[in-house]
Amino acid sequence: FKLFTLNSNPELAKEVAEILGCEIGKSSVTRFSDGEIQINIEESVRGSEVYLIQSTSQSGNEHIMELLIMIDALRRASAKTINIVIPYYGYARQDRKARSREPITAKLVANLLETAGADRIITMDLHAPQIQGFFDMPVDQLLGVPILSDYFEAKNLEDLVIVAPDNGGLVRARKMAGRLNVPLAFIDKRRPKPNVAEIMNIVGDIQGKNAIIIDDLIDTAGTITLAANALKEKGAKAVFACCTHPVLSGPAISRIEDSAIEELVITNTIALPEEKRISKITTLSIAPLLADAI
Amino acid sequence: FKLFTLNSNPELAKEVAEILGCEIGKSSVTRFSDGEIQINIEESVRGSEVYLIQSTSQSGNEHIMELLIMIDALRRASAKTINIVIPYYGYARQDRKARSREPITAKLVANLLETAGADRIITMDLHAPQIQGFFDMPVDQLLGVPILSDYFEAKNLEDLVIVAPDNGGLVRARKMAGRLNVPLAFIDKRRPKPNVAEIMNIVGDIQGKNAIIIDDLIDTAGTITLAANALKEKGAKAVFACCTHPVLSGPAISRIEDSAIEELVITNTIALPEEKRISKITTLSIAPLLADAI
Ligand SMILES: Nc1ncnc2c1ncn2[C@@H]1O[C@H](COP(=O)(O)O)[C@@H](O)[C@H]1O
Ligand SMILES: Nc1ncnc2c1ncn2[C@@H]1O[C@H](COP(=O)(O)O)[C@@H](O)[C@H]1O
Repeated sequence: FKLFTLNSNPELAKEVAEILGCEIGKSSVTRFSDGEIQINIEESVRGSEVYLIQSTSQSGNEHIMELLIMIDALRRASAKTINIVIPYYGYARQDRKARSREPITAKLVANLLETAGADRIITMDLHAPQIQGFFDMPVDQLLGVPILSDYFEAKNLEDLVIVAPDNGGLVRARKMAGRLNVPLAFIDKRRPKPNVAEIMNIVGDIQGKNAIIIDDLIDTAGTITLAANALKEKGAKAVFACCTHPVLSGPAISRIEDSAIEELVITNTIALPEEKRISKITTLSIAPLLADAI
Repeated sequence: FKLFTLNSNPELAKEVAEILGCEIGKSSVTRFSDGEIQINIEESVRGSEVYLIQSTSQSGNEHIMELLIMIDALRRASAKTINIVIPYYGYARQDRKARSREPITAKLVANLLETAGADRIITMDLHAPQIQGFFDMPVDQLLGVPILSDYFEAKNLEDLVIVAPDNGGLVRARKMAGRLNVPLAFIDKRRPKPNVAEIMNIVGDIQGKNAIIIDDLIDTAGTITLAANALKEKGAKAVFACCTHPVLSGPAISRIEDSAIEELVITNTIALPEEKRISKITTLSIAPLLADAI
C-alpha cells in the first residue's frame, strides 16, 4: 500500500507513517495564483492500494475539494484501490432536513466522494450512525470512546460520573460509563417558554463527584460550557470534558477558558492551530488507531 | 421559471432579473460558525424550472461547494429542472493531463454537478470547446466575441488589427476580425533555448495600427502585457486588450497599469472587486445575453 496526505492533517499522517514504518507518498498540493488547487502526484501509484488521509475540517470546502481532486488524480493514475481516511467527516450535522428545502450536505458529500472514485472510507465517530448508510462503499467507523476512557482511567480519579450533555449523546456516554464501570448522568435542557433561557436540569447523582462530560464534537462550546457550569454549581467536585472532534470555532476557546471545565481532552482528528492550544486542553493521538485500521 | 443566485455574482443576477422582469428567488446562503455552508431556500420551488446563477470564480472552491449544495437543496425540494448558469467555468484550464498523474479537474467538476442533480448548463467561452463533451447534460455555450466586437465597432477606431496572443486564441481572434472585417495578426512566442527569455515574434502587419488583443481569460496578465508591450514597440499606434473572463489574480492589475495597454475591455462573468476597478478597465455586461438564453 501507499499512504498519502493532503493539507488538513499532515502531522497526523506523519505519525501514522512512523507507526507503520512507511514513507508518505510524494505529492504536492498547492494553489495556482487564482486559488485553484494544483495537485501533482510525484511517484507511481499504478496498481497500488492507496490510503489518503484528510479531515474535512475547517476550511471544510477547501479540504473537500482537495480530497476530490486528489481522488481524481489517483484514479486516473491507475491506483488499484483508493481508501480515504477522513478522521473528521465535516458537514455531518447537515444529515437531515430539519426545515423544508434544506440540503442534506452529509449525503451530498458522500455522493461526491463516490463520483470522484473513492473505494472505501475509514472515519471516526460520525455525528449520527445513520451517515454510514449514505455511502454505497464500505465504511469503517472507528470510535473515540476507548482512547478517551483509557486516558481518564490512567488518571485514577475517584467518584467518577459520566455526563451526556444532551439526549443525542446518551449512547456514547453509556459506552464510556460501561468501560470505566462508573455511573451515568445526563443533562435535560428545557426551555420553559419561548425566549426564556434554557434550564439545565441534571438527571442523576453528581454531588461531590468528578464529572466527565463526553460529546462527539465541540464546536462553539456553548452547550458544553453551560453544562459544565451547571454541574459545578449543583455540587460536582470537578468537571472534565472530552470529545473526539475539536471543531472549536468562534468563541469556543474563550468560553472554555472562562468555564468550570478543569481539563478538556480531545483527539487529533482535527489539527489544532497554534492559537487554540491552551493549557486546559490535552490532545490524544488517534495515530495508533488509524495505523491499526490501515 | 424561478431565478436564484448564489454569492459569486449577485449584481449580475439582479441585472438579469430586471431585464426578465422577475424577482430573484428568496434564499439565504451563509456560513455556520465553523465555515460550513448553510443554505435555506425560502420559497417553494416544487415543480418549477429553476435557473441558478453562479460563476465558479475565485474563491472557486467555496463557489463550487455553494453551487453543489444549492443544487442538492433544489432537487430535494422537488424543482422540476435545475438549469445552472455558470458564466465563468473555473478549473477549465485543468482540462487534460499535461503531466502524468495530474487530475482533470474540469471533468471532475462536470461529474460533481451531474451527481448533485443539475439538468442543464449555460456557460460562456469555455477555455477549450472540448469541455462541452465533459458533460452528459445539455450545455449552452454563449460567446463573448459579439459583445466585445460591438463595443470596439462603436468606438470607430481606424486601421484596426485583431491580435491573438497565442496559437490557442487564433479561432477566437479570427471570429472577431471577421465580425469587424479587419485583418488579423498573431504572436508566436518562442523560447530559443531553455532558460532564455521568450521572444515575442509578431506575425502580421501591425505597423501604425490600432491593435486589439483578444483572449478568453486574463489571469496574471503576464502573456497579454508582454504582447501589448511588444506590439507597441514594434510600431502599433495604440494597443487595446479584451477578454470575456477577468480572472485578474496576483500581479495582474499592476501589470496592466504598467503596460502599454491603453484600455482593457472585459465582461462581468466574474464580479470585479472594488480594488480592481481601475480606470483602464471597461466592463461590459452579459446580462442581456443571459436573459436571452433563459
Ligand atoms: N456546521 C454547522 N454548525 C452549526 N450547526 C450546524 C452545522 N451544520 C448543520 N448544523 C445544524 O445543526 C443541526 C443539527 O445538529 P444536531 O442536532 O447536533 O444533529 C441542524 O439544524 C443543522 O442545520
Ligand atoms: N488556475 C490555474 N492557473 C494557472 N494555470 C493553470 C490553472 N489551472 C490549470 N493550469 C495549468 O495551465 C495549463 C493549461 O493552460 P492552457 O495552455 O492555457 O490551456 C496546464 O498546464 C494547467 O496545469
